[in-house]
Amino acid sequence: MLDALKSGASDTLRLYPDPNADKLKQAVAKYYNVTTKHVFVGNGSDEVLAHTFQGLLKQSKPLLFPDITYSFYPVYCGLYDVEYETQPLTESFEIDLRAYTSDNGGIIFPNPNAPTGCVLPLSDIKNLLERNTNSVVVVDEAYIDFGGESAISLVDSYPNLLVVQTLSKSRSLAGLRVGFAVGNPELIDGLERVKDSFNSYPLDSLAISGSVAALEDKPYFEKTCAVIIETRETLTKQLIKLNFEVLPSAANFVFAKHKTQEAELIASQLREKSIIVRHFKHVRIKDFLRISIGTNQECEALISALDEILQGCLIQ
Amino acid sequence: MLDALKSGASDTLRLYPDPNADKLKQAVAKYYNVTTKHVFVGNGSDEVLAHTFQGLLKQSKPLLFPDITYSFYPVYCGLYDVEYETQPLTESFEIDLRAYTSDNGGIIFPNPNAPTGCVLPLSDIKNLLERNTNSVVVVDEAYIDFGGESAISLVDSYPNLLVVQTLSKSRSLAGLRVGFAVGNPELIDGLERVKDSFNSYPLDSLAISGSVAALEDKPYFEKTCAVIIETRETLTKQLIKLNFEVLPSAANFVFAKHKTQEAELIASQLREKSIIVRHFKHVRIKDFLRISIGTNQECEALISALDEILQGCLIQ
Repeated sequence: MLDALKSGASDTLRLYPDPNADKLKQAVAKYYNVTTKHVFVGNGSDEVLAHTFQGLLKQSKPLLFPDITYSFYPVYCGLYDVEYETQPLTESFEIDLRAYTSDNGGIIFPNPNAPTGCVLPLSDIKNLLERNTNSVVVVDEAYIDFGGESAISLVDSYPNLLVVQTLSKSRSLAGLRVGFAVGNPELIDGLERVKDSFNSYPLDSLAISGSVAALEDKPYFEKTCAVIIETRETLTKQLIKLNFEVLPSAANFVFAKHKTQEAELIASQLREKSIIVRHFKHVRIKDFLRISIGTNQECEALISALDEILQGCLIQ
Repeated sequence: MLDALKSGASDTLRLYPDPNADKLKQAVAKYYNVTTKHVFVGNGSDEVLAHTFQGLLKQSKPLLFPDITYSFYPVYCGLYDVEYETQPLTESFEIDLRAYTSDNGGIIFPNPNAPTGCVLPLSDIKNLLERNTNSVVVVDEAYIDFGGESAISLVDSYPNLLVVQTLSKSRSLAGLRVGFAVGNPELIDGLERVKDSFNSYPLDSLAISGSVAALEDKPYFEKTCAVIIETRETLTKQLIKLNFEVLPSAANFVFAKHKTQEAELIASQLREKSIIVRHFKHVRIKDFLRISIGTNQECEALISALDEILQGCLIQ
């Protein structure tokens, strides 16, 4: 992948990139066994999601998404004036798609969900699609490669399904800003129309060549995912030993709640030790911390810092 | 510049880029002698313009722009539901800012204009700003470095002025997709709010490091601009010899009309010889061709192809 970038860093950068990023569409299509007409690409999955909200999810009926989810969904609704309703997660912080029954202009949810990390089986998504046939269903799979099964295999059977993915997480390319969507060609056309009115060249030449090379390097991808998963399982066990309750995660982070100590306090004491974990103010999850899976070394540093902090709490 | 890219093509691409692209803002600010609070950056000037239409130009009164101008202005108006009115160019195809007197929600024009290449002196823009103080005035300077004077020097005096530029033309970096706007911090804040709701990381790490290096390499920039200008002047003289009328251009293209032969016919015959020039259907400019300034060799090939085509026309 780095070789592709280094050879792309040449005098040809004076030329405009391919506005359709055909090579990237071909690489995604080949990887997921669909045609290029099923593929839309953008400047990170955030841009793909923004176009999806503007082009596909702005309807007269409200959009549905979970009450605890990716924080950008309500932001996009604000930007494009999309009406929405939230559906609460279950008491165990899972998405229950059976609750998504009201008349709607679209449904969107991450799978695995953020910041909980909980994953839905494909059968749940299939059940929703069997029932909800009159509006677009978007599955935002930013974290799918860390333990879930992609809904891309359902795209051929359900013309109202759009699956969004990113190369920022499992493909280790956050620095290059590449995301994509896979769905029925009619949905993809809707996204292309927004894109063509917004920015003809959203992906630069290096982002295209780098992401094509990354999609072709399956062994590297599988190895990095396997390492994250293994580290996540080790970290989960260590957190449980430190009296944390850890939600079952299929992502590259875990969502954990200490049984006696306040999450906000733990987060601020970790920050003093230069370790950053996310704490959310939302009342339902204010006791939780979102902890990213770093390297083994970073996770060990976290565990020993937590150990120190929690021992301090007990003494006080 | 290429060295900066090659060293950026490293393992650090797994990390997210700086969401604010501070290094790039600093490079632009230093180059134009403004503060970083005066600078907005985006994924090509098309993204900067799109955010400008959505964030600053959508008003209850109509936006004003020339009848012959950058084709994306009405497209953005369609995308964001911005009402607009066009002002005709003069008979000599120039923008006459004295005609922009009606009550408006904003004014936008390219300087030099596209596809005519005609440039306005800074004094005309200053006169407009003295008079039009209640709406945002956007000067789109995609081609300014090929023969015009930038309005960035006026930004401090006129809080309603926003100047948009790109690194795709005079900085030879179309492949990297980098554009920016310079204006009063309040206008920049308005753009940042749209950007923060749309995509936190519009510029990838390599686009940031490459464009910083390009802005720092003033000698290369000045040399490439000088070459374009010299080639443009030579090409203009040769076109006049072939019986073309050529509008005075301050851009990296010329806009030319043959005195006897149809533009559309010339364009199609050039295409048969694998030379692409732009022909527009708009009734006012249907007799013109937009010819990009390529290398000396490309311009010589164009002239000899035109010579051949026009001799053929005379024989027929």
